[in-house]
Amino acid sequence: MAVYLHDIPLPEALDRFNQALRQGGCDGLLGVEELPLDERLVGRVLAEPVWARLSSPHYHASAMDGFAVRAAATAEAMLNQPVTLICAASAGEKQAAYLDTGDPLPDWADAVIPIENVEPLDEAGLPAANPRRPQVIRIRASVTPWSNVRPMGEDIVATQLVLPAGHVLRPVDLGAAAACGHTHLRLARRPRVAILPTGSELVEIGQPVRPGDIIEFNSLVLAAQVNQWGGEAKRFPITPDRFEDIHRRVQEAAAEHDLVLLNAGSSAGSEDFSARVIASLGEVLVHGVAVRPGHPVILGMVRRSPTVSIPVIGVPGYPVSAALTGEIFVEPLLARWLGRPPQEPLTVEATLTRKVTSPAGDDDYMRVAVGRVGDKLLAAPLSRGAGVITSLVRADGIAILPRGSQGLPAGAPLTVRLYRHPAELERTIFAIGSHDMTLDLLAQFLAGRGRRLASANVGSQGGLVALRRGEAHLAGSHLLDPQTGEYNLSAIRQYLPGRAVKVVALVGRQQGLITARGNPKDIRSLQDLARPEVTFVNRQRGAGTRVLLDYQLSRLGIAPEAIRGYTQEEYTHLAVAAAVASGRADCGLGIAAAAQALDLDFIPLYDEHYELVIPDEIYHSELLAPLFEVLSEPAFRQAVAALPGYDVSRMGELVAEVS
Amino acid sequence: MAVYLHDIPLPEALDRFNQALRQGGCDGLLGVEELPLDERLVGRVLAEPVWARLSSPHYHASAMDGFAVRAAATAEAMLNQPVTLICAASAGEKQAAYLDTGDPLPDWADAVIPIENVEPLDEAGLPAANPRRPQVIRIRASVTPWSNVRPMGEDIVATQLVLPAGHVLRPVDLGAAAACGHTHLRLARRPRVAILPTGSELVEIGQPVRPGDIIEFNSLVLAAQVNQWGGEAKRFPITPDRFEDIHRRVQEAAAEHDLVLLNAGSSAGSEDFSARVIASLGEVLVHGVAVRPGHPVILGMVRRSPTVSIPVIGVPGYPVSAALTGEIFVEPLLARWLGRPPQEPLTVEATLTRKVTSPAGDDDYMRVAVGRVGDKLLAAPLSRGAGVITSLVRADGIAILPRGSQGLPAGAPLTVRLYRHPAELERTIFAIGSHDMTLDLLAQFLAGRGRRLASANVGSQGGLVALRRGEAHLAGSHLLDPQTGEYNLSAIRQYLPGRAVKVVALVGRQQGLITARGNPKDIRSLQDLARPEVTFVNRQRGAGTRVLLDYQLSRLGIAPEAIRGYTQEEYTHLAVAAAVASGRADCGLGIAAAAQALDLDFIPLYDEHYELVIPDEIYHSELLAPLFEVLSEPAFRQAVAALPGYDVSRMGELVAEVS
Repeated sequence: MAVYLHDIPLPEALDRFNQALRQGGCDGLLGVEELPLDERLVGRVLAEPVWARLSSPHYHASAMDGFAVRAAATAEAMLNQPVTLICAASAGEKQAAYLDTGDPLPDWADAVIPIENVEPLDEAGLPAANPRRPQVIRIRASVTPWSNVRPMGEDIVATQLVLPAGHVLRPVDLGAAAACGHTHLRLARRPRVAILPTGSELVEIGQPVRPGDIIEFNSLVLAAQVNQWGGEAKRFPITPDRFEDIHRRVQEAAAEHDLVLLNAGSSAGSEDFSARVIASLGEVLVHGVAVRPGHPVILGMVRRSPTVSIPVIGVPGYPVSAALTGEIFVEPLLARWLGRPPQEPLTVEATLTRKVTSPAGDDDYMRVAVGRVGDKLLAAPLSRGAGVITSLVRADGIAILPRGSQGLPAGAPLTVRLYRHPAELERTIFAIGSHDMTLDLLAQFLAGRGRRLASANVGSQGGLVALRRGEAHLAGSHLLDPQTGEYNLSAIRQYLPGRAVKVVALVGRQQGLITARGNPKDIRSLQDLARPEVTFVNRQRGAGTRVLLDYQLSRLGIAPEAIRGYTQEEYTHLAVAAAVASGRADCGLGIAAAAQALDLDFIPLYDEHYELVIPDEIYHSELLAPLFEVLSEPAFRQAVAALPGYDVSRMGELVAEVS
Repeated sequence: MAVYLHDIPLPEALDRFNQALRQGGCDGLLGVEELPLDERLVGRVLAEPVWARLSSPHYHASAMDGFAVRAAATAEAMLNQPVTLICAASAGEKQAAYLDTGDPLPDWADAVIPIENVEPLDEAGLPAANPRRPQVIRIRASVTPWSNVRPMGEDIVATQLVLPAGHVLRPVDLGAAAACGHTHLRLARRPRVAILPTGSELVEIGQPVRPGDIIEFNSLVLAAQVNQWGGEAKRFPITPDRFEDIHRRVQEAAAEHDLVLLNAGSSAGSEDFSARVIASLGEVLVHGVAVRPGHPVILGMVRRSPTVSIPVIGVPGYPVSAALTGEIFVEPLLARWLGRPPQEPLTVEATLTRKVTSPAGDDDYMRVAVGRVGDKLLAAPLSRGAGVITSLVRADGIAILPRGSQGLPAGAPLTVRLYRHPAELERTIFAIGSHDMTLDLLAQFLAGRGRRLASANVGSQGGLVALRRGEAHLAGSHLLDPQTGEYNLSAIRQYLPGRAVKVVALVGRQQGLITARGNPKDIRSLQDLARPEVTFVNRQRGAGTRVLLDYQLSRLGIAPEAIRGYTQEEYTHLAVAAAVASGRADCGLGIAAAAQALDLDFIPLYDEHYELVIPDEIYHSELLAPLFEVLSEPAFRQAVAALPGYDVSRMGELVAEVS
């Protein structure tokens, strides 16, 4: 049976799925379980309202340490006309009795006088040895009935509604339920979700990997999501791409679970069996939803028994698609089964930093970094690739470019569904510019001081442009001026005319050629790049390293066309090193630390200054103060100095002020 | 040894505590544990940064289902000048090879052409039977190097920072850690927290309660808080108020835990042993903090061994104080021990609905309900009592009235630290006015339709006043006009002059006398209230029931002074019933449902109309639409009709329009 991938809009996909769930009778609570009140119930969802069984307090309680009295007996008391009340039973009718806070009011009393407002006396009329066990008390003011008493039901009156059904339990809710006489709560049963990783290319975490092997971690992410949303996830072992094996696994999982997540094989490739398996066990409702990333999702129902079907979701294989499929399809389904409202992200309005394009046919889930620069909250698009899980890790939120839109211009307003607390955005330092490995160390040290460093690697020139546009707090830059031999100053004058900025030294570092271990092609200098058997990997235009290369090539009279791979551009030092490590190139120009990180050889050629360019108003801001603390912190300097090819002697120095 | 309660300001208390922690060497991480990557790690805190061990992808991977090629070999291809590339090895040098998405790029290739852009052919030059296993492919466009390839390191380059230390793990973080070659993570050890309930008046949940018994649930709330904040709580059984027993328990707990919470006995009452126990085992640093509720808190250190001390917190016994002590003292301590930032509430700016007073010496943590009426976000103070745990359950947030302030006037701006998602506030219906038990049922039914009903019981007149001030969406009212016999209309004209409002029927209900079971004092009518041996319990001024009572008393010529207990006022029908049930009064005027709820007798006297008064602009709002749905829902009508003394025949009818 052939099943075709045909994208349909998200609302229609959800409609079809929900209709099938209703018809299948799996639309509401899956069951109710009664559990004893226990701290582990936090996060569980009430299947039924909690009505008070007991009042709280369930008796009239003293609200203070003090003496129970009849208010009427105090009516005549005045400062100069004290009234004496008898405490000891032997001395006559009881008129006052000591109570600790919380003690029940005696039948005969209707008020409490705090102990500090009475004079406790012994038989001789002297201050009592134990002020809580006097013979009599003397009082000099009257009290009104019910003073300092917590009347029965002050907090909760029996029969009243304490918590509604569908409520997600918090710590105080458990206390309130106990206070009003409950020992157990009736909770929505947690949905059982089977997670089935499939794919012959998959290897379990911890197994050795060869090219073509993919570490299977989608099941980990999906299971963690399911548990977080109130379900009970079970991860199955990897099933290879064989129809019969997947078929058997889905049948087995459907027997004992409420939902099956089949990952991946949801596309239409040669070994994508999900749709065929689902069709053979039930029905494919939707194959392909117009969302991106994540469109090859499958929604279906599979038979557990002749009369019962359960839903199955074919989850795409790319990790970003898989995680978003969880958010879009799994979370709302779990919410319905638990009887709670679906989770709702906080949203903020932000300004898009650069133009983005988007396929008009899809709802496009764009990951963005969000931070405040000046008075604007900015949203900077992160990698759009469905395979780039770090784009979700780094994302501060998601902006949806709706179907029908072909993109947005720079500066467009954007609603961002946040993954983070909004206050964190205010503590985010946007560092846009050249990449250096010390920025990762800096991020780690800043995290310990309450700042988040979000860095985007767009090269030195790109960083200065971002500063000009007010889209960054600082730019890492190492732009050599071929005329003067100075770093950064002429570029600052060119890109930031009229702006007052400070330039702070971060590190001195060596630039050189990164080659394979043992330098098999015996590369020694830039001249070797022109050799026909040598393939080079370049940095992108605007990168300081590229400026350095072009300057040195022109000095040496080497034409770029003579260099094989000159047009092959990477955006970071590590990416250049990775290209060399993989054999894609024989060498690239970069820093020593990148070579060492991937165990490559390094031929040092030049010393350069890597500096931070910071607009004056930001330089003095509270946001950046922790940055300067870190730059003068010995532990940070040591960590940087431990990387090869770095000179930290000028770190933190104010190198120049441009105004 | 005598220890005195002496309140000091919160910052100073925290300073002393933190200094002792530093001196005791328990200021940072308590330890590191390495655990295998697992979905249960969500919420755990990284003790160390995660640096990438592997790149991801760790090889050049095809980004599409398609054919691997050398880009150079496609350079000449054009629409009318196709290029043919050989796939089968037998037919010569391999020039193209089919790849599924994710397959590694062969050594000889540097680009991928998607399968939909090629013509797969068999030996005869006809379309191949299996398009993925053709003899040759024909292409009609060139590709550039690295097209449709995910280069090694596209997502993560080995050695880069993936997650910083102190990061709280989310599902996608686990995926990223696995993607870059980690099998285990090094995590902050969870702080072990002993929770010791003490008090001879305490009984465990589920035990029978007698007057004076207090159900012990603070340990449940504290344990749930500790677990939620990343600690590992252990609840101990109740220890009675005996110095030696508490002393032994604290010693025992200190041996195996990082923190001891001793609840309660932190005050200075006759059986408050906490401070003495702590002093005998170590040192009391602070006894009494100028925070309300919660001031009798103790901060101290106790010796585990001759060289090691651990912190102990004496937590006050009132449940609101106990929960707030958790938030103020325990959460930040756990955050520090876990190396994560302390939790940070969202805040909103709201307008205070009514004047509040506050002790000038304390930081006063006021619980508030928050909702939007018109364009104003309003904060309505809830019960200030430290014993009223429902004030925390119902609270949408906390507003702190700082030390030095003696209160705030109505209309003052207020910063509220939210307990709820801000979007929930926008879905909150504020019902202020007369109490009726159907409002609890209504709240339950509305919860199922995405609305939260926050009701405050201030009596019918109070509700109309709240509408006038723009502080409520609707008011429940049953105000009889003694002149006309009509309900509500004349009061609306008086309290809401010139305002256009709608009046909607909720229920007809019987008012009558609530008496003890069996009616031992043989009360039959309002005339009996004047009998000297009968004690009455009244409703507050402005309540519809009070208006009814006063009207009938004047009709009957009975003077209020003749009624014992006339000045004893309660705010709800249930509170009146509770007063009768407890023996505090012999009877009160109220509704049948309240009598039944507490198993009391009811002597019906009058029929009345309980109606909802709703300003026109709110009547038509989206916020209220679900309310009208519920009013016409048979299940809701049945639930109300099942209560005694209710008539639902007119429920939902538009009774009157006033403009």
